[in-house]
Amino acid sequence: MARCIDWQDGAVVLIDQTLLPGEERWLRLTDPEDLVDAIRRLAVRGAPALGAAGALGVALAAVSGVSDVPAAAARLRSARPTAVNLGRGVDRALARLPYGPEAVLAEARAVLDEEAANSRAIGERGADLFGAVADRPLRLLTHCNTGWLAAVEWGTALGVITVLHERGRIERVYADETRPLLQGARLTAYELRALGIDHRVVADGAAASVIARGLVDGVVVGADRIAANGDVANKVGTYPLALAAARAGVPFVVAAPESTVDTLTATGGSIEIEERDGAEVFDGPAYNPAFDVTPRDLVTAVVTERRTVRPADGEAL
Amino acid sequence: MARCIDWQDGAVVLIDQTLLPGEERWLRLTDPEDLVDAIRRLAVRGAPALGAAGALGVALAAVSGVSDVPAAAARLRSARPTAVNLGRGVDRALARLPYGPEAVLAEARAVLDEEAANSRAIGERGADLFGAVADRPLRLLTHCNTGWLAAVEWGTALGVITVLHERGRIERVYADETRPLLQGARLTAYELRALGIDHRVVADGAAASVIARGLVDGVVVGADRIAANGDVANKVGTYPLALAAARAGVPFVVAAPESTVDTLTATGGSIEIEERDGAEVFDGPAYNPAFDVTPRDLVTAVVTERRTVRPADGEAL
Repeated sequence: MARCIDWQDGAVVLIDQTLLPGEERWLRLTDPEDLVDAIRRLAVRGAPALGAAGALGVALAAVSGVSDVPAAAARLRSARPTAVNLGRGVDRALARLPYGPEAVLAEARAVLDEEAANSRAIGERGADLFGAVADRPLRLLTHCNTGWLAAVEWGTALGVITVLHERGRIERVYADETRPLLQGARLTAYELRALGIDHRVVADGAAASVIARGLVDGVVVGADRIAANGDVANKVGTYPLALAAARAGVPFVVAAPESTVDTLTATGGSIEIEERDGAEVFDGPAYNPAFDVTPRDLVTAVVTERRTVRPADGEAL
Repeated sequence: MARCIDWQDGAVVLIDQTLLPGEERWLRLTDPEDLVDAIRRLAVRGAPALGAAGALGVALAAVSGVSDVPAAAARLRSARPTAVNLGRGVDRALARLPYGPEAVLAEARAVLDEEAANSRAIGERGADLFGAVADRPLRLLTHCNTGWLAAVEWGTALGVITVLHERGRIERVYADETRPLLQGARLTAYELRALGIDHRVVADGAAASVIARGLVDGVVVGADRIAANGDVANKVGTYPLALAAARAGVPFVVAAPESTVDTLTATGGSIEIEERDGAEVFDGPAYNPAFDVTPRDLVTAVVTERRTVRPADGEAL
């Protein structure tokens, strides 16, 4: 299975997600500043992939002989503030700097391998959880993109859907288009088509009524940061899905690696929400928060590679 | 004040809303079938304006000597199923057919005048309601377009905002872009700019968190059909706003003329939801419901030209 980001022959190689689905162009980056730019413009995105990108960026700085590797690491870290994985990946690689460039690279490759392996484990665990929801193929709704493009391999929420599909347990997936950058319509639909999963793209505003009208058995999304109390920051447009799922009495499940859990952040109120250029939304005055926070009481379960936590039942992480 | 649709010299004249804000092109239609097409493709839209369009279409058929006026009326009526005003306007004009074309036209002009006058009254009543919410300029959020383009003159929800602005009581308006056809970004932003009202366009998915984060004092929207029990059908994406407003404890107000109230429909469950071409959303498999239903318990108030009803408090229409 291809990885959306990888290390090859002294360079970071990644598929430029801004060009999908029209063009599959792979970038080969040898300057860490180009990776900072790629992260900012979302050529690489998704919490687990950002973890890998952060670590690989530090490795690239170390291996290519950048004079001030910690400064390069700081620029990587601040490229996007909300996803905790990015800073985590940077820190893990940077901690190996005293042991030389090869040690940094080995750690970055370990981050990459772990994110990929965790994806598969999350998919299996999430599929087990949804398998108990109903005794027939399921209709699920998802938001943004959480497949191999977001998670190095497999995916988080889309990994759960992939494993359910392997088990013959998916009837249909509704994919929010996910404005403003259309990760759902561009990336998730592209992945679902490749997987041969029946799907329908819906406008973000339509998702709540799709849930209310009984068209889905549950909602599964990824996360960019999960606070200690179970509040979840994810792509803007996630919170209304949780409100609608709670009202409809269907499970709202967050699938994410442990690297997305930030126990140093007590609640969602402390999570910095990235505000992006309004021009992504509208050619005029606009407000463009990239993420929202779903309060814990609306989160049926958080599924990671090693545990299932139920914030709505009062469980913390 | 200009009317978005009117009768002039034997023709129905309307501004083509599909071309706004880039181009202000007025269409002059002399064939009722061209008006059916204009309604279908949303060149004219908005519940009150559709009431006027339905009546004017029947008048056009009668005046221009169409042989089977009731058949033309039936095609007008079925051009869009969810807005009750369209069929109401058609029926009112058609009932005058036995009295001759001039009687039909007079009735259509009466519908037009009434929708315009009602708009202003709704604005005043809604502004009084919001005036009591806080003792300072308000920050409100709205969805889709409900200004003069939707309501012949003034507007419904945007009429409320206009009157509040005249009273110096608007700080800022957040306008959902309203996918898939972007009536918020194209039409509401265009109207707010013309009115000199500070505004920010937001992605539909961002609206719920804008509400949750305390950035607005209330939500005001229009309606396409209001059931007897207070359930409200409106542009898809309205329901999640109501969920978020209820959770945040801010008022969710529906501004609409009495002609939008359908006491023959007991609850929202009986309202036919128009499903439009998926290609409006996505070049691939898509599901595109044009409306959603907000249950009565989430509707703080329905404001019409002659009364304020509070469905969330158990009041019916």
